[in-house]
Amino acid sequence: MEFIDRIQNHPLTQPSPTDFISLLQVLGSKGPMSNGLKKFIAAHLLPCKIEKGSYLLKPGEVCTHIFFIRSGILRGFLKDGGTETTTWITPENQMAAAISSFVFQAPAIEYVQAVENCELLGLSHADLEKIYLRFPSFNIVARKIYEQYYAEAENRALLTRLKNADKKYNHFLEQHAALANRIPIKYIASYLGIASETLSRLRSKKASKNRKKNA
Amino acid sequence: MEFIDRIQNHPLTQPSPTDFISLLQVLGSKGPMSNGLKKFIAAHLLPCKIEKGSYLLKPGEVCTHIFFIRSGILRGFLKDGGTETTTWITPENQMAAAISSFVFQAPAIEYVQAVENCELLGLSHADLEKIYLRFPSFNIVARKIYEQYYAEAENRALLTRLKNADKKYNHFLEQHAALANRIPIKYIASYLGIASETLSRLRSKKASKNRKKNA
Repeated sequence: MEFIDRIQNHPLTQPSPTDFISLLQVLGSKGPMSNGLKKFIAAHLLPCKIEKGSYLLKPGEVCTHIFFIRSGILRGFLKDGGTETTTWITPENQMAAAISSFVFQAPAIEYVQAVENCELLGLSHADLEKIYLRFPSFNIVARKIYEQYYAEAENRALLTRLKNADKKYNHFLEQHAALANRIPIKYIASYLGIASETLSRLRSKKASKNRKKNA
Repeated sequence: MEFIDRIQNHPLTQPSPTDFISLLQVLGSKGPMSNGLKKFIAAHLLPCKIEKGSYLLKPGEVCTHIFFIRSGILRGFLKDGGTETTTWITPENQMAAAISSFVFQAPAIEYVQAVENCELLGLSHADLEKIYLRFPSFNIVARKIYEQYYAEAENRALLTRLKNADKKYNHFLEQHAALANRIPIKYIASYLGIASETLSRLRSKKASKNRKKNA
């Protein structure tokens, strides 16, 4: 099944306006959103469901849509020889895409997979370009979102380059406390570039420390 | 010496308009740049020189300026225990900053160092925010630049996560062919996350292959 079929899998009933509230809130927190702009976006969103474990995108496919995650968690990962390396983990109320593939409309090198059942709202690259032209103020919103996501991505990249496993996991907990127990430990370990066994040991140590503190 | 003193080190003679041409060309290739906007930018740029090997920014300092590199090469790196890890390498005619520190105006966790003598044009975060408000069309230019830099940064991050040293160096050569001989091998090796000795071996193998091809 191709990317576009996969994301059109959701029953094509017209979603209700309340389905877009959280997306419009996120966008509205960044800059001015006229009613015309909100209507245009709502009319061009592609709602889709992806089941836990299944793939949204595979290497070689072009990521034609950017997604707002209404519920669930997506992750990006690389397969290199026999090894899987998780490169990003994104939960609900955030945007996700194989960003380089989306921006350059070029074949992706990564997989995008649902870690939990996901409800997504997709917006195509072509429609986004139309929005930039028809509603220039949306460039303010998008500039702020890209700025934030870029800065956060650099932080993530720095984190994975640290040598000390303990330090890495502490940083991860600072940034993603709520995710630590929703994601299989092997994904977190490969995201941090440490062995699953090392991470299990770290977690047990932390848990026993917390028990002592609370005793 | 503090960050702001370091970047004000350049003799404060007013730079000539030709000094800004390459920056304005880069910006103009992304979107509309009115004469008023060009003048505002030129009037607020801080030209500075950084000598090869010296630091532009150190961990704990806030990266208050983003820089256009007129000449030279900057690199970002982490020190973690005894290890130095190069996280990015940026040559002339591109922008550079400790991006997370710049965007959030928070203390940096990385070093920024001149790999060659550099001539830079700095623009402060405060002046950039003024530009966004006074010249809203600059949000188009900035959105496109952030989009591109974000997508390229993700590509870089993916590259460093690959396991195969040969593959990594080939990707590096595709992206940075012109830099391979300008940068000390130890920086490239730590950027790719491989040992200097492995990289030296890879380079000799490639050179001998090329000699055979040309013989």
